[in-house]
Parts: sequence; structure tokens; C-alpha cells
Amino acid sequence: MKNKHLIGLEGYPSKDIKKIIDTAISFKEILNRPIKKVPSLQGKTVVNLFFENSTRTRISFEIAEKRLSADSVNFSASSSSLSKGETLKDTVKNIESMKIDAAIIRHPSPGAAYLLTNYIDSVVINAGDGTHEHPTQALLDMASLYEKFGFLKNLKVGIIGDISHSRVALSNIHGLLSMGAKVTLCGPSTLMPQQIERLGVSIKHNFDEVIEWADALNILRIQRERMNKGLIPSVREYREFFGLSNERIKNHHSKEIIILHPGPINRGVEIDSEVADSDQSIILDQVLNGVATRMAVLFLLLGGKSEEKT
Amino acid sequence: MKNKHLIGLEGYPSKDIKKIIDTAISFKEILNRPIKKVPSLQGKTVVNLFFENSTRTRISFEIAEKRLSADSVNFSASSSSLSKGETLKDTVKNIESMKIDAAIIRHPSPGAAYLLTNYIDSVVINAGDGTHEHPTQALLDMASLYEKFGFLKNLKVGIIGDISHSRVALSNIHGLLSMGAKVTLCGPSTLMPQQIERLGVSIKHNFDEVIEWADALNILRIQRERMNKGLIPSVREYREFFGLSNERIKNHHSKEIIILHPGPINRGVEIDSEVADSDQSIILDQVLNGVATRMAVLFLLLGGKSEEKT
Amino acid sequence: MKNKHLIGLEGYPSKDIKKIIDTAISFKEILNRPIKKVPSLQGKTVVNLFFENSTRTRISFEIAEKRLSADSVNFSASSSSLSKGETLKDTVKNIESMKIDAAIIRHPSPGAAYLLTNYIDSVVINAGDGTHEHPTQALLDMASLYEKFGFLKNLKVGIIGDISHSRVALSNIHGLLSMGAKVTLCGPSTLMPQQIERLGVSIKHNFDEVIEWADALNILRIQRERMNKGLIPSVREYREFFGLSNERIKNHHSKEIIILHPGPINRGVEIDSEVADSDQSIILDQVLNGVATRMAVLFLLLGGKSEEKT
Repeated sequence: MKNKHLIGLEGYPSKDIKKIIDTAISFKEILNRPIKKVPSLQGKTVVNLFFENSTRTRISFEIAEKRLSADSVNFSASSSSLSKGETLKDTVKNIESMKIDAAIIRHPSPGAAYLLTNYIDSVVINAGDGTHEHPTQALLDMASLYEKFGFLKNLKVGIIGDISHSRVALSNIHGLLSMGAKVTLCGPSTLMPQQIERLGVSIKHNFDEVIEWADALNILRIQRERMNKGLIPSVREYREFFGLSNERIKNHHSKEIIILHPGPINRGVEIDSEVADSDQSIILDQVLNGVATRMAVLFLLLGGKSEEKT
Repeated sequence: MKNKHLIGLEGYPSKDIKKIIDTAISFKEILNRPIKKVPSLQGKTVVNLFFENSTRTRISFEIAEKRLSADSVNFSASSSSLSKGETLKDTVKNIESMKIDAAIIRHPSPGAAYLLTNYIDSVVINAGDGTHEHPTQALLDMASLYEKFGFLKNLKVGIIGDISHSRVALSNIHGLLSMGAKVTLCGPSTLMPQQIERLGVSIKHNFDEVIEWADALNILRIQRERMNKGLIPSVREYREFFGLSNERIKNHHSKEIIILHPGPINRGVEIDSEVADSDQSIILDQVLNGVATRMAVLFLLLGGKSEEKT
Repeated sequence: MKNKHLIGLEGYPSKDIKKIIDTAISFKEILNRPIKKVPSLQGKTVVNLFFENSTRTRISFEIAEKRLSADSVNFSASSSSLSKGETLKDTVKNIESMKIDAAIIRHPSPGAAYLLTNYIDSVVINAGDGTHEHPTQALLDMASLYEKFGFLKNLKVGIIGDISHSRVALSNIHGLLSMGAKVTLCGPSTLMPQQIERLGVSIKHNFDEVIEWADALNILRIQRERMNKGLIPSVREYREFFGLSNERIKNHHSKEIIILHPGPINRGVEIDSEVADSDQSIILDQVLNGVATRMAVLFLLLGGKSEEKT
């Protein structure tokens, strides 16, 4: 692996993305065994530093750590010294001084994960930093696409929704382009970052055109807070233009399209239950691939020995 | 075991109740060793899904899981996606997709645990669902009675207090009747479910008559919230009619009566300290039997291998 | 070890303090290995009972427990039965009935840890009880000093700040005097306990005199709440008289002085960043020694076998 840390997929080597995806897919075999545990990271300590609430990401990392036999320690902001006015730097340097091997960090501020790499020697893995990046989510999305299609090069992926506020979108854009996929973004113009085409993506405002074009759609969660801020007129209007319903898919009946969603789902808003629960949807595969991908990242960055894998 | 899950003791086979009690009692021997751990569930993942606060039940399950060498993952509602509007079904299906082996669920809604069995393949164990059932509590109560008396058939058990709102009472009624015990309920008529006799229990409103009759009393916790709602006039009046004091027991001096309480205790309300801390009380034995019973349930439902037990 | 529990360093045998420090220093070697884990406490259960928020102390104990292969169970007051009105005694007796081996307790009331020793058979380790004692902090401070200087006898240690409200100060005073060190206290007279000299310490109100005298300074955290109560006029004034800046140290340029701080640091209040991050500061060494010291205490009190150490 070229980089010691995993902060984002911007500029991340495609060779290493490939290695993570391949390792993740090989780890899935372990997850289907009755005993889903390997001793690869025995004696390593991984601290999950969550400065923002999260169910699935924290549990996904914790399960990944335990299946590699690492010791997991959870830290959440609410029970922390932060209320005593300590800086992020001091909190994290202190925890690192206890000789940990990796810090998984989720933080509301873009750049928080990168910042830590200046202060600590342990491996830092970004589990979402504000609107910046959420690289393990994009890696698991790509692992799920690769598992389904067998290739990423020239795969046509539409990313639909609130692009401006989505770290999932940004990490997917960087990762998919690096792997040679084609990316089209689609969403309300109020939620589309200016000049994002410069990254190498296309933009369409007509969702039906994207469905017609795409092999797979990654439907982003629409956050109701955006509506309060006037960025989206109403749930009903959002659903009409950018919600994925069975009717909308059936209009393009000639094709099989694969549906992804990072969760949690707003049923009936950005995606209808019929679609989310259909055979086209690989939403729950993404969740399992999330554990496998996080195992792969931890394994590759913490130097787990592969002979210990069985 | 006939049932894959443990949702409640209503209709639960008595043969399987017996097997759980016997296994629990054999596990107690392990709990008295210096090294209180067996590898039976190594590589299994158990998620404790607590949508309601709980100290003792969560810790009891967690200790049971760790003593069987399972990996425990804790989830509590306050730090969850539920605040983001995700349904219980989606939350749990997501967690299950990470390939867990069992979900322990506590939830304020009656039926929540059963509901999950429709959605997920993992073993579901109900750790209390609203006013419905709390089967592991009843199983540990029965294990404690069995340990004390050596039999359950025809054992005379009084259950005292707020029967209407008690999942502990309901699970005990179903379990004890299934094992051939005799059950008499006693409490304020405002807190006694209508037509509960149909289940096969007796009802008495005079506590002294129940003491005279019973081999054992299971004293329920009285929740002060009930008073605000006018269901109980006052603590003093409740104590006078349904509180267990030494004086009340001494009036029936010819007999030994065994006292159970699921905790936490309101000292001086439903039970006096002298009684709770006396030799007749097996309240703390219940707590240890709780760990042993939860180990037994996990072991039997997750297919732990008995040759690994030693 | 003379005492079964570790409640405070008042009256604690110096021989046992020495044994803890020596064991801690030997454990540091393990913490520098790639696999930082030993099986000494396998099968033992340690419950971390935190009735007060804490990041570093809870994580430090949890990491120490896991590196000795004990099973850790976390309990925090916010998710407890305490809101249901249960007494501390009942909560803890219940948890102990599950057959735990040690309880680590942090509690806002002075004496809470000692109280528990009357109720439970498990080993009790005080992780801070109100303004009373925080013995593992003082032991790690002494281990850090011993590691730096090679001796504690006649070592001159200044403790600076809010002595009245500091359990860290009190535990250090008892421990250091027991080991033959010289202790001088310095701080605002409003924050200096009356007649504390009787313990065998000196008091100075001029910080510069203490710097001139001392081999090491333990700078206490100043809590902003004190200011609201009128015990300190302002941050600026506190800093002027008792804040440790580079200028203040340079006035005593003939000497090397070692700086400790129990954290979390108020940068720019009781200590300047230049000092906290300088080579004289052993603040982060203290954190690592904290893990090693807690491993030593757990190992010695829980009877870990030393042949298992390697």
C-alpha cells in the first residue's frame, strides 16, 4: 500500500483500490463460515473515535475489528473530555500515547481525519469527515459493483441526490474515476456543486436520461434538514423529480439496472420500498461488503499476516 | 430445541424449558471456577440491541456472551440512526446483513421481538418487549426456584404487585404453568388484568392469604409512574396492603417462604430491606442464575458444541 | 500485596507502591511489542463502573484490561438503573453477583469506592471518588518520575494549582511522602486546604520559589467552574500567578525541571503550549505509563500468573 493512512480517495492509487477490493472479496468467504474470525490482528488495538452519531458505520468497523481478532475500544464524543474544552489534537494524542495501532475517526469537520495524521503515528482511517470524504463507503460501493459486474472500467454509474453535502458522493466520484468508470451526477441544481464537471464527471438534471444511460445507480439519502434550509421545496416535489420508483424504472424496461444506497433509507422519498427491496437492489449486499471492505482496509494497513488468515 | 428463537414462554415447550434450566445449572459450575470462560461460541457475533435503558439485563447478557467466547457488539437507541427516521426493520436488517449470529433485543413496544423474526435469519432473543414478555427473566426465576426446591411441579408461587404492566409476571405465568407449578397473583385490582384467570392462575387480593399458601413469592417492582397515573393511591398505602415486611412474614411463622424479586428493588415500598437481605431472599442468586440462564439460552440456540464446554 | 483493594494511597504500604511501579515499568516493555497482549487475566471479568464522565481514565483501564486478556464490561451511569432510584449498593451488589473479579469505580462522592468494599467480595479499584483520591493517577505519576529520575527518595516535587478540589493532588501527596519524596504545594490560598501541612508537605504561595526548589512540577488542571464560584478572580490573573510559561521557566535557567500534568490540559491557562509540548514535559509518557500502571495494579491484585507474562 502506498499510503499509510486512508483519508480519502482523491488521488488514491487505483492499484491500491484494486487491492482493497480483491482482499474484501476474499474476506467475504470468511464471513460465510460458521466461525467468522481470523487471528490476523491479534494483539492490535483499534480505537473507534466517533465525534458524530452513527449506528451502522461504527458497528461495521467494530465487527470488522473483532473478526480480525483486534481489540476494539469505543470512544464517543458525548462521554468525552471535549466538553471540558480539550482540543481534538490533545484528545487524540492522549489516546494514541496508550500505544494504539489504528484510529478510526468520524468527525463533523471536513479535514479532521487528515489533521490527525500530522499528530499521530498510528494508522488513521477516515470514517466520514463532514462533507469531505467517506472512503470506506465508496470502497464498499465499488466492491459491491465489482462483485456484481466483474469489472469497473467503463461501468456507467449514476449518483443521484444531494451531491453538495455528500461525502459518499465525493469519495465515489474520486474512486470510480480512478478505476476507469463513467460517472453521471443527477440532482437538484441547488444541491449540485459548481464546476464539479472539472473532476471528470457528467451532470444531468433529468433523472430518466440517467436511468437510460446507467448500469448502476447510487441513490443518496436526502436529509430533511435540507428542506428547512430551502434547498429542496418539499418531499413530494423531490420524490417527483428525483425519487426512484418502480414506475420510473419500468419506463426503461429494456434494461437491468443495479441499485445502491448507502443507508439509512428514507422510504418513499429518494427511493420507494418496492425498489429498495427488489432483486435489482444490492443495498444489503453493500452492508456485508462494508464489513469485508473494512476488514480488508484494516488488514492491509495494519500489516496482518496473510498466512494467519486460515 | 423446538423453536429457533426465544420470544416468549407462551406456548413454549416445557421440555425445552427444562433443558434450559438444566443447562443453566450445569453452567453455574463454570461460573464458580477461577477461569470462568469456555470457547463454545468462539467466532459467533451477538448484537445487543437495546432500544430501552437497562443496566442489569444488558450487562448480564454481555457477560454471558463473553463467558461463552462470543463477540459482543452493543447498540443502544440513543446513539442510533433511529433519530434519522429509520424504521426498526431497516435498522435490524442492516445489522443482520453484517452476518451476526444472534440479536438480543429490548424494545418498548410489545411484539417488537416477534416482528424481527419475520425479517431476519439470525436467532432473536427477547430481552423484554414493552408489557409483553421477558422470557429470560422468567427462565432465571424458574432456574432459581428449581435450584432451591428441586422441583417445579406443584410448586406454589405467588406473584405480587403490578401484574398489568409486568412482562416479568406474564413470562413467569406462562413458564410456571407449563412446568406444572401453581400460580396465584396478588395486587391492587387496578393493576390486575381482566380475565387473567383464564390462563389458569388464581387471583387473591389479600396478600396474607397468599403468604399462607405459597412456597415462594415473586415480588414485582412497583413503578412510581403508576402513582402519577392514579393507579395506586400512595406509596404508604401500597406498602400497607402489598409491601413485604418482616412483620407480615412473621405472622405466618410456621413456614419457610422463599422470596424472589427481579430488581431493581424499591426498598421500603414493595419489599423491606430486612426481607430483601434475609436468608429467605434469593434475589442475588437470581442475578447469578441470570448469567447462567442466558449462557444456556445462547448455547442451546446458537448450537454451541458441548464437547467444547470443558 | 497487603491490601486486597486499591482505594487510596493514604496509609498504603510503600513496599507495595514500589512493587506496582516496578511491575508497571516491566509491563512497558510489552507495550512496545508489535503484539501488545499477554494472557495473564484470561477468563477474568473486570467491570468499569463510571458514574462520572471520563475519556482517558476509562479508555486507559479498558486498554489495560484487554492487554491482560481480561473481559471488560463497561457501565456508565447515564444508561443505568440509577435513574430508577436504585442505591449504589444495590446496583453494585447486583453486578457483583454476576461473578466479576474486579470493579473499577469512578464516582462523584468521596468515599464511594471505600463504601463498596463493605458490600462486595471482588477487588475494588478507585478510579477517582469526588475530591478524595485517584490512586492510579498518582501511581502513574510516580512511575513516570521514577522512570525519569531513577529514584523517588528525596525527589523534590511541586504540586501546583487547585489543591482543595484535587483528588490527584491528595493521592500524590500520600504516595510521594510514603516513598520519601519532598512535596511542596503551591496555589491560590482560596484553593489550599487548611492545615494540609500536617500531612508533611510545605506550602508556598510564590510559584517562582517552587520552580527554583523543585526537580519536577505536577501542574493541576484548573477547572473553570471554580471561577464562577469566585475562588479564582479570572483566567488572566490565575495565569499570571500560577500559569507555567516558558518565560517563567527561563528565569530559572540553571536547572532542568520535569513537567507533569494529569490532563486534560487547559492550554494557556495553567500551562502554556510551549511548555506542555517541550522536551521537559513528560505528559504523554504519563499517559502510556497510565496503561502500564493499571495493568500492574490489575495484575497484582487479581493474581495474574507471572509465568504467563511471556
